[in-house]
Amino acid sequence: MEKLKPAIESKNISLALAQKMLEAALVKGEELGMPFSIAIVDRVGNIKAFAAMDGAPVLSLEISQNKAFSAATYNRATHEWYDRLKDDPPLLHGIVHTPRLIIFGGGYPIKIDNELIGGVGVSGGHYSHDMQVCQAALEVLNTLE
Amino acid sequence: MEKLKPAIESKNISLALAQKMLEAALVKGEELGMPFSIAIVDRVGNIKAFAAMDGAPVLSLEISQNKAFSAATYNRATHEWYDRLKDDPPLLHGIVHTPRLIIFGGGYPIKIDNELIGGVGVSGGHYSHDMQVCQAALEVLNTLE
Amino acid sequence: MEKLKPAIESKNISLALAQKMLEAALVKGEELGMPFSIAIVDRVGNIKAFAAMDGAPVLSLEISQNKAFSAATYNRATHEWYDRLKDDPPLLHGIVHTPRLIIFGGGYPIKIDNELIGGVGVSGGHYSHDMQVCQAALEVLNTLE
Amino acid sequence: MEKLKPAIESKNISLALAQKMLEAALVKGEELGMPFSIAIVDRVGNIKAFAAMDGAPVLSLEISQNKAFSAATYNRATHEWYDRLKDDPPLLHGIVHTPRLIIFGGGYPIKIDNELIGGVGVSGGHYSHDMQVCQAALEVLNTLE
Repeated sequence: MEKLKPAIESKNISLALAQKMLEAALVKGEELGMPFSIAIVDRVGNIKAFAAMDGAPVLSLEISQNKAFSAATYNRATHEWYDRLKDDPPLLHGIVHTPRLIIFGGGYPIKIDNELIGGVGVSGGHYSHDMQVCQAALEVLNTLE
Repeated sequence: MEKLKPAIESKNISLALAQKMLEAALVKGEELGMPFSIAIVDRVGNIKAFAAMDGAPVLSLEISQNKAFSAATYNRATHEWYDRLKDDPPLLHGIVHTPRLIIFGGGYPIKIDNELIGGVGVSGGHYSHDMQVCQAALEVLNTLE
Repeated sequence: MEKLKPAIESKNISLALAQKMLEAALVKGEELGMPFSIAIVDRVGNIKAFAAMDGAPVLSLEISQNKAFSAATYNRATHEWYDRLKDDPPLLHGIVHTPRLIIFGGGYPIKIDNELIGGVGVSGGHYSHDMQVCQAALEVLNTLE
Repeated sequence: MEKLKPAIESKNISLALAQKMLEAALVKGEELGMPFSIAIVDRVGNIKAFAAMDGAPVLSLEISQNKAFSAATYNRATHEWYDRLKDDPPLLHGIVHTPRLIIFGGGYPIKIDNELIGGVGVSGGHYSHDMQVCQAALEVLNTLE
């Protein structure tokens, strides 16, 4: 009989949490007075929940999803990329062309007890606005028991 | 001076309505006891709101969006396609290859006063189940003043 | 404080198991004397391990991956599709066009204790040969403690 | 009677060698303590063997394959690209958009007696780590009789 580890356990964001984060993001979006697209993906970058505020730019529909995808699949907030790229020209001119990889702010990993369970991505304003909306979504994690 | 009509007005589903329809669909999904993906798109087929129930098949993420897209962009419920194709071999063997076009049940146009404003698509069960979930979403339209 | 379930646990195939299954498939392939492509994917259809026997047809490289993807993402062996489709014309003419969905034999879900952890796909011979190679891979599951 | 050369001979990596290189890469990956994706392609860039270590980032699945593809199809290690591009602005801003072309380290041609037979690509760490894993794979070539 073989003795090998057949499977790796992991956690994925629930729809209940994804919707709660989406709601918090929408409240923040209303407060900022701009129309954002907000995407929540699971641990492997698959779409879990999504909402586009009325008037959200068409391009933001995909960018928000790509930000969430980038954050989850690399386990790194999208705004952290540029600092790692700026003094590394091959990456700066190369990795930025990776399909779906976004290297500016507005995408964050979602973690429970420091374990990756998904990603949130926001697009519609300058990335500094997008980041605020993400942070409002992430604050929901602090309210969990 | 030219006298031309510079623009065409159209209506698009609001996020408020999209979310209400999504909630109704999720209630029906829970009732059926299967994990569905549910997508709402606007009049031109762009994603407006989305939710994947926990355990929804990966393929349902895209198929649900494609059903909503098909319904809105052709202003036709997806289950109405086959009857129109079955005796028209060039279409039956041709148009079914159109990217994103789904010809089985689970996608419906969303209309207000008979005017197209969007589409809803559901995937996860047999299309007969998917259609029930769509219908639950569409019933929300009857509750509007 | 909120009380919601923030995450869903799931299992994914380990590389150790994937490689062992791949080896068993290759032994069977040698025995049959045809060059197969063999793909193992994880629970969500992402590639985990792959080998193309010398002389494997170029088309088999992608078909084997798509079979494994189909089996994992729908939790259904690919040869089970046709029986469900043959008396359901809208699906027979419709769902077969889903990108990456394969509806003939040679793709199987991989399960531990009846829980989906991945998929195996084989291409290179007639699907009846491909299925034999898959089954050799799946027999590895019976040797685990 | 025409006297033309009807065919060109070429050599392609065998599965036996590809698997041996993959094993060596996995040993190096374990030693570095990071989860890498490792791809071996044949002379024309088609996938030959692949393994993703447990925990490998989703993006690394495709990037590793693209590195191996780039190396084989251009017969150039991917880290050699940037030096050739940096003073040639049309290329620096243009060729980097070529689908599947990677211009940072982690992809190497595989050669026997200075003849191209395939490519190896690794992704998962910084490219300096990825390059070390590739080199471990390439050292297998020195052990062949």
